[in-house]
Amino acid sequence: MVRARSTERRAEIVRATLEVIAERGYRGASLSAVAERVGLSQQGLLHYFPTKEALLVAVLAERDQWDTGGSTRSDGVWRIELLASLVEYNAMRPGIVQTFSALLGESVTEGHPARDFFTRRYTQVRSSMAATLRAEYGERLPGGLTPERAAPLLVAVLDGLQYQWLLDPDSVDMPAAFGDFLALLQPPGQEAVKNPQS
Amino acid sequence: MVRARSTERRAEIVRATLEVIAERGYRGASLSAVAERVGLSQQGLLHYFPTKEALLVAVLAERDQWDTGGSTRSDGVWRIELLASLVEYNAMRPGIVQTFSALLGESVTEGHPARDFFTRRYTQVRSSMAATLRAEYGERLPGGLTPERAAPLLVAVLDGLQYQWLLDPDSVDMPAAFGDFLALLQPPGQEAVKNPQS
Repeated sequence: MVRARSTERRAEIVRATLEVIAERGYRGASLSAVAERVGLSQQGLLHYFPTKEALLVAVLAERDQWDTGGSTRSDGVWRIELLASLVEYNAMRPGIVQTFSALLGESVTEGHPARDFFTRRYTQVRSSMAATLRAEYGERLPGGLTPERAAPLLVAVLDGLQYQWLLDPDSVDMPAAFGDFLALLQPPGQEAVKNPQS
Repeated sequence: MVRARSTERRAEIVRATLEVIAERGYRGASLSAVAERVGLSQQGLLHYFPTKEALLVAVLAERDQWDTGGSTRSDGVWRIELLASLVEYNAMRPGIVQTFSALLGESVTEGHPARDFFTRRYTQVRSSMAATLRAEYGERLPGGLTPERAAPLLVAVLDGLQYQWLLDPDSVDMPAAFGDFLALLQPPGQEAVKNPQS
């Protein structure tokens, strides 16, 4: 019962943090702002999440859960048109994209608390994207690439476009640019992104 | 004369910072470590660069200068094989790549002192990469893309691969992955990266 209440409280804090991020961005999402939102002292909040980084990692992990929920096929593989929709959705929520991008940047520095989260996440995401590419385009992609070799590029484009878009949203149309990348992955002569078998 | 000495001193500080970054990484490159290296007090260093961010921006701007020096054609356009060599070179200097990636991550947050530098840099780099793509592949790229539409993807792949590589260098072969992206840009039937006219 205590465990259940604690899990619920943590989920509530994560939701509140997401709200604060949406309203005030990465820098505005301080532990004190989150504590105030959920009616805890800052000390009380630290009982659940010992650092701001730990809290933000929990938020990003939760977002990954939400984003993948409902967007898979019966075999658990993501569909590429849902990935394109996710990019459109992200273009409407700069706060969380900014938080992801800022924390990813920090995570590559020595001994950063989010490094482990991102390293494991990318291993998982590359593997999941390879399965998506295989389901969509088969074994052989343009340029002689396999799905496994195209997957890190797909992930790099997603992340890299986010930085360009966050810095200069008027110059970079993130969803259109991602669509352009998908066009590069089309086998020559095949126009639509959709896989007729799916 | 005073101006010349000051310019020289700043250049010396930038070079020293690059050395400290190479040895100790982004977090190790503190103002005090740099001050010690050049024989200044921390206060003396702040006279030249008022913040760590200002110093790092100067280092990254200087790196851009070095990297582009000698790697252009007579018309000032980058050659794509030199871009591929630069990715290989970067894979041997994780300290500066880490500094770039960490500062880029920070720069997307509200009011960050490096935001302006990166925003202007990306405008310039996208335009320069479009010229490179045009010189290499002509007006029409695979997927029906123009050089201008492919340029943000090229830049995104460069940045995105750096994060994946910094987090997990054993799993991500950055130069090979960049070569794979160039293969996607090849017109079908054309195998080599080189432009015979260049």
